[in-house]
Amino acid sequence: MAVSTIEPIIWQDDHLLLLDQRALPGEERYLRIDSAAGVARAIRGMVVRGAPAIGIAAAYGVVLAAREAVRRDGSPDLERALQCLADARPTAVNLHWALARMRRCLRTLAQGDTEGVLEEARRIHQEDVAQNRRMGALGAALIERPSRLLTHCNTGSLATGGYGTALGVVRAAHAGGRVIEVFADETRPWLQGARLTAWELAREAIPARLVADGAAAFLMAQGRVDWVIVGADRIAANGDVANKIGTYALAVAAQHHGLPFMVVAPSGTVDMDTATGADIPIEERAATELTQVMGHAVAPAGFAAFNPVFDVTPARLVTALVTERGVLAHPDEAAMRRLFGVGAEGR
Amino acid sequence: MAVSTIEPIIWQDDHLLLLDQRALPGEERYLRIDSAAGVARAIRGMVVRGAPAIGIAAAYGVVLAAREAVRRDGSPDLERALQCLADARPTAVNLHWALARMRRCLRTLAQGDTEGVLEEARRIHQEDVAQNRRMGALGAALIERPSRLLTHCNTGSLATGGYGTALGVVRAAHAGGRVIEVFADETRPWLQGARLTAWELAREAIPARLVADGAAAFLMAQGRVDWVIVGADRIAANGDVANKIGTYALAVAAQHHGLPFMVVAPSGTVDMDTATGADIPIEERAATELTQVMGHAVAPAGFAAFNPVFDVTPARLVTALVTERGVLAHPDEAAMRRLFGVGAEGR
Repeated sequence: MAVSTIEPIIWQDDHLLLLDQRALPGEERYLRIDSAAGVARAIRGMVVRGAPAIGIAAAYGVVLAAREAVRRDGSPDLERALQCLADARPTAVNLHWALARMRRCLRTLAQGDTEGVLEEARRIHQEDVAQNRRMGALGAALIERPSRLLTHCNTGSLATGGYGTALGVVRAAHAGGRVIEVFADETRPWLQGARLTAWELAREAIPARLVADGAAAFLMAQGRVDWVIVGADRIAANGDVANKIGTYALAVAAQHHGLPFMVVAPSGTVDMDTATGADIPIEERAATELTQVMGHAVAPAGFAAFNPVFDVTPARLVTALVTERGVLAHPDEAAMRRLFGVGAEGR
Repeated sequence: MAVSTIEPIIWQDDHLLLLDQRALPGEERYLRIDSAAGVARAIRGMVVRGAPAIGIAAAYGVVLAAREAVRRDGSPDLERALQCLADARPTAVNLHWALARMRRCLRTLAQGDTEGVLEEARRIHQEDVAQNRRMGALGAALIERPSRLLTHCNTGSLATGGYGTALGVVRAAHAGGRVIEVFADETRPWLQGARLTAWELAREAIPARLVADGAAAFLMAQGRVDWVIVGADRIAANGDVANKIGTYALAVAAQHHGLPFMVVAPSGTVDMDTATGADIPIEERAATELTQVMGHAVAPAGFAAFNPVFDVTPARLVTALVTERGVLAHPDEAAMRRLFGVGAEGR
């Protein structure tokens, strides 16, 4: 089985190294981050992206803040740092999940025990990789025959602590000899599919082709797709899924063609405090992400845009929700409550 | 009523001027074309694109070939030139329709009557503009209330002899005060929506926003779209529509949301010799159109792609087919035969 050697987030001695995903696939460059504010900036600026990866980076951000607080002897600073990290991006709930966990840890540790804080961040990181491998196995088991898989955005090692969510399932299915071909949506406007997913697939020699987002439905109509597999940035209590813009269009097209639609995400992505997808805040980014491409103006200057980063796929379009706690076929509120509700193990 | 002043195709004295659409919106630059081979190159190289515009450019290409044949006293050259133009792009049928019409004209004219050939090309050009205005009126009449319109690719003055097909309907509806807002799909990989449609909309001050192709379905889910309006590159005898890649995904999403889907194309786009959409040849272009953007590598070098230029929307997803001969609601083979069949007026 091919083991991914891609490490997007590395804690080194007293600082964080983040693989600068804006520079891929042209250049593998790490940025050195020394402060929680620096982590927040890196999250906002998309140096690191992907819901699980953002959570892990934020956890290490808390470590940097705790070390800084010790140096300055100030816990108000620590609180400010936590808030600054929480505000970095609104949609991905893993960020808030990781920060809540770090906050709980801070309360149990002796003041100034920065090693303890680091241990907790490392645990979040390692657990994420372990969860991804578990989801990979569970998701790949759903793919019974050699199949053509369509995926969206980047949900691989780069989007997580390592291995990936949806792309982890692709990796596991490939390792099991059940991948004929992967179609990677290029995923406008940030081109995560072209820049990041293609790069990961090429590195692991998984047979794959890039497609324009608008071409995916036509591929399905031609009978060239067996599974659509995507990640998630937040999953509401009723099973609605917020994920990269374009996901919902794939779900609609998959249903139209009778194709199974798999969502792969760790339980940290589930937000039982958000009732439905309509309650999930959807981040909108600048029009320039559409009016400019690679620094070139591709539309008239000042032209307006509708540029939501995420969309919401209703639970009824989801064939299987794969988490490290198990698989929900056609998730609904009752099934979600059983697996993730208050009192469920590990919450 | 705003009158478009955009002239993408101009015959001047003894040569053709083509507005170089590759340079828009940054630069308005005309290329001077002196030969049929030059026209074929311009069509292949996307200097001029859009099914009707390609047909008109090819007609003028025949004029250039006829003038060249007179200079060289050779009709074999003329035949070769017609073939070269016919081969320039495979999917758009207007090209073949225009060339067939020019061929018929050549047969009726005295040898060497290049003025007669020019007259026929001019007629094709002028008829296209007149047809577009007629379709604009017919299509706009279907839009009963002030509406939000979603369109794909570029189907405006730049894609036609002037005014446009789908964008002609948008223009007419706007002139009639029934456009709240236009959403223009950016239309990867060539970004015709960003580069060309946005440019046309900005020039005519029609309120509009750009959206990533993958965001269109989410817009529909939010109740922010009332009509989807697209053009066509070829329409089969059963009403199936070949159009820019991404059109089919919009049609599927429109049906899912119960939204009307309008196709606007002149009768020259209808190919009664092609039984169904499955019989339409779909042009595929190089992977580099996806792996490179504006000259920058955005995917690993040599990464493969599936890059069809067009897709096929089955007739059953089309709410209204608007042509200059009239409107077909839910077109099918019988209705198509009545309006466009052998013996129908003007064929």
